[in-house]
Amino acid sequence: MNKLVETILDHRSIRSFEDKLLSKEQIETMVLCAQAASTSSYIQAYTIIGVTDPEKKAALAEIAGPQTYVEKNGHLFIFCADLQRLQRAAEMENADVTEALESTEKFLVASIDAALAAQNAAIAAESMGLGICYIGGLRNNLPEVSKLLGIPKRVIPLFGLVAGYPTNPSAKKPRLPLENIYHENEYQSDPEVFNEQLEQFNRTIRSYYLKRSNGLRKDNWTCQMTAMLGKKSRLYMKDYVESQGLNKR
Amino acid sequence: MNKLVETILDHRSIRSFEDKLLSKEQIETMVLCAQAASTSSYIQAYTIIGVTDPEKKAALAEIAGPQTYVEKNGHLFIFCADLQRLQRAAEMENADVTEALESTEKFLVASIDAALAAQNAAIAAESMGLGICYIGGLRNNLPEVSKLLGIPKRVIPLFGLVAGYPTNPSAKKPRLPLENIYHENEYQSDPEVFNEQLEQFNRTIRSYYLKRSNGLRKDNWTCQMTAMLGKKSRLYMKDYVESQGLNKR
Repeated sequence: MNKLVETILDHRSIRSFEDKLLSKEQIETMVLCAQAASTSSYIQAYTIIGVTDPEKKAALAEIAGPQTYVEKNGHLFIFCADLQRLQRAAEMENADVTEALESTEKFLVASIDAALAAQNAAIAAESMGLGICYIGGLRNNLPEVSKLLGIPKRVIPLFGLVAGYPTNPSAKKPRLPLENIYHENEYQSDPEVFNEQLEQFNRTIRSYYLKRSNGLRKDNWTCQMTAMLGKKSRLYMKDYVESQGLNKR
Repeated sequence: MNKLVETILDHRSIRSFEDKLLSKEQIETMVLCAQAASTSSYIQAYTIIGVTDPEKKAALAEIAGPQTYVEKNGHLFIFCADLQRLQRAAEMENADVTEALESTEKFLVASIDAALAAQNAAIAAESMGLGICYIGGLRNNLPEVSKLLGIPKRVIPLFGLVAGYPTNPSAKKPRLPLENIYHENEYQSDPEVFNEQLEQFNRTIRSYYLKRSNGLRKDNWTCQMTAMLGKKSRLYMKDYVESQGLNKR
């Protein structure tokens, strides 16, 4: 197993950082790595906003939870799906490409482009000995995030990524059984096999939580997921994304 | 600059492979690396289908272009956004979570989860000396892809990823200027600065194409993007995704 694979497999989300900022060089390396990712048809449909302003960081931390590590970290990146750049490109060529920009296809392309880029940045950070955590909590209130960051139409802040020097390295969290994630030649949908795999994972995660909590935490994956999905969470998203001029047709 | 960062920065898409299959171990390493990526609220909302059946590969290659490298490669992975697993998890807990599963928020979460996982697999492959290429062309006809792979409701095949031993290593493609992608504290929307950055990139990419084509290819990024966005491409996506029970509300 090579070093890079080891780094990838050793990932854990870090939620507590030293009071030490990343250097300009570290930030640039992360962004250049993000940009080196594959991009659909060369579209490069994302923008990354680095947030250093303490008031903005505090406000974003509040929106995201509150989560202190959104405020206290080495650097905070916000990854946005961005089709506004493409609109400008088309305007430079005197063309109207509204239909494409507003399509679900291009919304998907931009979101995937942004995520591929982000994961490169994350891995690069980890290779430099930094810890990272994705911040999906920003989606609690994207209109407010957009106001804070001056986000224009055709742009959606998808998630944050914090990086920094870890203080309390957390434990590596188990993943679903490989056979449940990876199927061959067709989607494996035998309900008995599938449910047994989830039960197996429930046993794994149950003992993981029991051990980490000294016997206090007793839930498992399926009940954790069910509780999470049962919350009426971010149901404004469809309207918001459409109001930004994306995912409309 | 460490070795992992070098690997990431050295990325180029590979579209021509030796006639040599990946080993079971290589495939497993890629999948385990995919699984090690961050996942929103532990949701792990993706499934990867490895396609080895020659007839299926040929059919998928046809849909994607045709693109011969979808058929001829070391291995073909199909990354799917998957909320079906979550539906099963909720059923095991006797809960109905339809509202969450059908939300744009969870469609976004699943797509991002799948992309983060895929990029880990891609980087892992490159670290093992393999080349990779993403296959967005599968989205030309997702109903047909779904039929070939037995994709159930609440699952969307997002893209393919081929990996293998490169024969004709291609050139590294330039990226947008860092300042155009990376903004500080707020979205940089001064039109003059922005347009000048795109003009600068147009000059870069124009000389890149001229050089690679011995003076024959004369387009630039903005005109390439405008042509691509001008095509009525994959406008069925919104209806298809909704018919799969996602992105509905």
